[in-house]
Amino acid sequence: MSDKSMLDRTTALLEKTTDRRHFLRNSALTALVAGVGTACNSAADARPPVVAQAGAATSGAMGAHDAVKAVSAADAMDAMHEKGIKAFPAKTAGKGNQVLAPRIEKGIKIFELTASKIQWETEPGHMVEAWAYNEQVPGPQIRVREGDRVRLVLHNNLPESTAIHCHGLELPNDQDGVPFITQQPVKPGESYTYEFTVPNAGSHMYHSHHNSAKQVGLGLLGALIVEPKVKAAYDRPDVDQVLILNDGAHGYTFNGKSFPATEPIVAKLGQKLRIRFMNEGMMIHPMHLHGMHMTVVTKDGWPVPAPWRCDTLNIAPGERWDVIVNCNNPGTWAFHCHILPHAESEHGMFGMVTALVVQA
Amino acid sequence: MSDKSMLDRTTALLEKTTDRRHFLRNSALTALVAGVGTACNSAADARPPVVAQAGAATSGAMGAHDAVKAVSAADAMDAMHEKGIKAFPAKTAGKGNQVLAPRIEKGIKIFELTASKIQWETEPGHMVEAWAYNEQVPGPQIRVREGDRVRLVLHNNLPESTAIHCHGLELPNDQDGVPFITQQPVKPGESYTYEFTVPNAGSHMYHSHHNSAKQVGLGLLGALIVEPKVKAAYDRPDVDQVLILNDGAHGYTFNGKSFPATEPIVAKLGQKLRIRFMNEGMMIHPMHLHGMHMTVVTKDGWPVPAPWRCDTLNIAPGERWDVIVNCNNPGTWAFHCHILPHAESEHGMFGMVTALVVQA
Amino acid sequence: MSDKSMLDRTTALLEKTTDRRHFLRNSALTALVAGVGTACNSAADARPPVVAQAGAATSGAMGAHDAVKAVSAADAMDAMHEKGIKAFPAKTAGKGNQVLAPRIEKGIKIFELTASKIQWETEPGHMVEAWAYNEQVPGPQIRVREGDRVRLVLHNNLPESTAIHCHGLELPNDQDGVPFITQQPVKPGESYTYEFTVPNAGSHMYHSHHNSAKQVGLGLLGALIVEPKVKAAYDRPDVDQVLILNDGAHGYTFNGKSFPATEPIVAKLGQKLRIRFMNEGMMIHPMHLHGMHMTVVTKDGWPVPAPWRCDTLNIAPGERWDVIVNCNNPGTWAFHCHILPHAESEHGMFGMVTALVVQA
Repeated sequence: MSDKSMLDRTTALLEKTTDRRHFLRNSALTALVAGVGTACNSAADARPPVVAQAGAATSGAMGAHDAVKAVSAADAMDAMHEKGIKAFPAKTAGKGNQVLAPRIEKGIKIFELTASKIQWETEPGHMVEAWAYNEQVPGPQIRVREGDRVRLVLHNNLPESTAIHCHGLELPNDQDGVPFITQQPVKPGESYTYEFTVPNAGSHMYHSHHNSAKQVGLGLLGALIVEPKVKAAYDRPDVDQVLILNDGAHGYTFNGKSFPATEPIVAKLGQKLRIRFMNEGMMIHPMHLHGMHMTVVTKDGWPVPAPWRCDTLNIAPGERWDVIVNCNNPGTWAFHCHILPHAESEHGMFGMVTALVVQA
Repeated sequence: MSDKSMLDRTTALLEKTTDRRHFLRNSALTALVAGVGTACNSAADARPPVVAQAGAATSGAMGAHDAVKAVSAADAMDAMHEKGIKAFPAKTAGKGNQVLAPRIEKGIKIFELTASKIQWETEPGHMVEAWAYNEQVPGPQIRVREGDRVRLVLHNNLPESTAIHCHGLELPNDQDGVPFITQQPVKPGESYTYEFTVPNAGSHMYHSHHNSAKQVGLGLLGALIVEPKVKAAYDRPDVDQVLILNDGAHGYTFNGKSFPATEPIVAKLGQKLRIRFMNEGMMIHPMHLHGMHMTVVTKDGWPVPAPWRCDTLNIAPGERWDVIVNCNNPGTWAFHCHILPHAESEHGMFGMVTALVVQA
Repeated sequence: MSDKSMLDRTTALLEKTTDRRHFLRNSALTALVAGVGTACNSAADARPPVVAQAGAATSGAMGAHDAVKAVSAADAMDAMHEKGIKAFPAKTAGKGNQVLAPRIEKGIKIFELTASKIQWETEPGHMVEAWAYNEQVPGPQIRVREGDRVRLVLHNNLPESTAIHCHGLELPNDQDGVPFITQQPVKPGESYTYEFTVPNAGSHMYHSHHNSAKQVGLGLLGALIVEPKVKAAYDRPDVDQVLILNDGAHGYTFNGKSFPATEPIVAKLGQKLRIRFMNEGMMIHPMHLHGMHMTVVTKDGWPVPAPWRCDTLNIAPGERWDVIVNCNNPGTWAFHCHILPHAESEHGMFGMVTALVVQA
């Protein structure tokens, strides 16, 4: 920013903060014009005397010196905010939630999941230890169909035992994945096979159910999407987006990444977008979409009896909510958790922020 | 309270806590009667010997000395509780959420909002720094109608840049108020004009969307109510109340004030009351109304497909919920957040407490 | 576990973590076989040299020594987890939420509640101070019918004043139980009588409304169930279960007990189970049922206009939600709060965990 621009804005700020007090500041402004170019970064900067007196006399008004400092500090803060937004979507190593194609044997869809300890980049340059399925956080997206025969093979390369619970599937008890209740834990070095016929449709999750506060917090989780046999209108969206919220050891993340490394959601004007919210964290996250509302169509995979509309949807740990967005408003729209400390700091947006881009 | 009254209650407590133990305490009570008037405030007070032995012999029973102390401590605590409630509604300087009449030019409703740093009194004698629109917390209430042409002029007298996002309005992208995504930040000393045709009805909010965790926390927020073109029955209430919940730098507040400085809601018996809950904080607040239930009619400004009833409504950050209360139960009714540490301490009620007064 | 078993698993882990790196480890395994039986618990254990080199060369692979340590640590952790689950349902002194039979005089159902300070065992060996009604946490379950004449007699044996608020009942104002608003506080040693005709059906609660953050947190709470005059289908369940969630001074509890001392819910295959969730704590608790979904039928005692299904139900402080579970899936099913740190630690499950046992 040029000194001239800062001067104009400083003068404006000074006028704003004193205009109701009929403050004669002509001489002060002259002093300010002379001093601002070189003085605004100087801590030892002498306060223009006339303005100083006026500032003292009019409680609440901003002195010229303070105005210069405010504009300068604001510029510094804004630069950080701008830098974050300009970096979006930032590149990082690794991408979670990639659809995993099954191997098919005798009509059975087989998914292999290997749990191991990895390094994961949540935002540029920020590496965290993750415990991951197939070296992805979230783990690979598993998509099956109601009635499919599915085999899930878990290989445990972790230093702890583990197990997989299919959260939301109404499986036979011995496939439920809870160590010492429905199975033995899967020890380090061991493999374990789950096999079942998919009983119910919807947006579900798979995750560890052993030492889970730690293991899920570190990344042992993924989306398990079951297409229904009979489709509703909302089962044929133009864009189908899984959005897994997390707030554990990796910070505030969407699909394993923090802003500006979160992935934007992109749709064309007029398209129907389905978002499948899933909360794998420990806190609620009320998700707020700008510019368009969301129509809630399913809860935990079950159709709601009457769809309802909102722009802020509160998602609690373990919940899944599916919404439809009619993308009728072109532009780039902020889309974030409305617990503001999960989304923005003095250094700019971070964590649970992404954008919905509606292309005209 | 008279010494006689304290004596009676001490005796009663003593009887209660020992009655199942068939404790003969006649002589102890005589000693107690003689001593209580002068001894109950003495830390060096000698324990009546007979009672002391009984207390030792009957584990769990309360000795006479303890009974005296309990009654005395209870009275002291109760006095604090009573003082708070008797002070309600307490006077403080400043009132937020006042309806702002627009200036109308060529059919455009113009609202001027000046953001500045002020001192704000949240409860008697408790001053906090606030960043406020038009020196109010919450900022002035803006009421418009679906289809209105509206101009919002923001004057920034703050030491930081800022911007206004109309939370819930489905505006054209360039009016969305998100710095570096839809506009440049409004620097200290600058003004900025938003102008749009109001696209959708309902209970919405306007607030800063720049360094928002801090700026909204400090008070840069207000209600933005859009009357619908076509009114439902609940759009014609007898009393229409906005209730903005906050939990930031100013503590737990309703419309910028903490109990006992919160404002009671007043309705006449038989009237319909509409409450527009808005959460501008960082935490959920399950609002509990005594004496009557609430019927939920809209979520984020959108009519719910089928109204539903409750007495405790959980409101998450960014959410708005409108309810109708059929004021059919006369009296003064507590109305508070049911996270009890947001509403009461050992010193009495505080924070997120108000009352609904139904006048017979 | 035998050394042989640990060896097998260590070998497997070693293979898993290195298999993509074509690591020749035959000699290392020979060394490992020789050493594992005695060395696995030795901190000074010498690392097999060949494996050590390989481990250094293949970043991310697990060395044989690490593999041994991992299996050993995993076994130790699993043993703690198993111990907790094997202990379930663990015996503790005291049982809360027991149905209290009223004394009936002239058609009035009279319930006597004595508030006193007790010691309460939340899980085996863990004693806490509780403030309790009738020496139970939660207090005794009160069951009445819409239209009943009820007298509630409170005896205060606590060292503080108190009062009872019937949360959810739409009582005449003077029976609402809020000190200094609707009544004087009930002092230590005093008794107080509430009397009213039950106005509305549903799952409600009674609790202290004086110094409530402390008093409710310590246990002064209980279920108040009102049967409706006209019953819906869900009012005739085979099993009717109250589940009071709390997170105060006693830790994370269901009906006053922490896992493994929580009580399992037991139903027969094909039965309808009604669960009445009530949150008396300060935090949300999204309750997740494995194996079957829940159909939400009432909110705060009010029938929902259209029942809806879920497997994870978010319950906020002060809320009551009734659900029906069609017990069609036999087995022992985990049932827990899905804020995982409320349910599991490195030491195993704890706190807000129980099981639904569906008997075939």
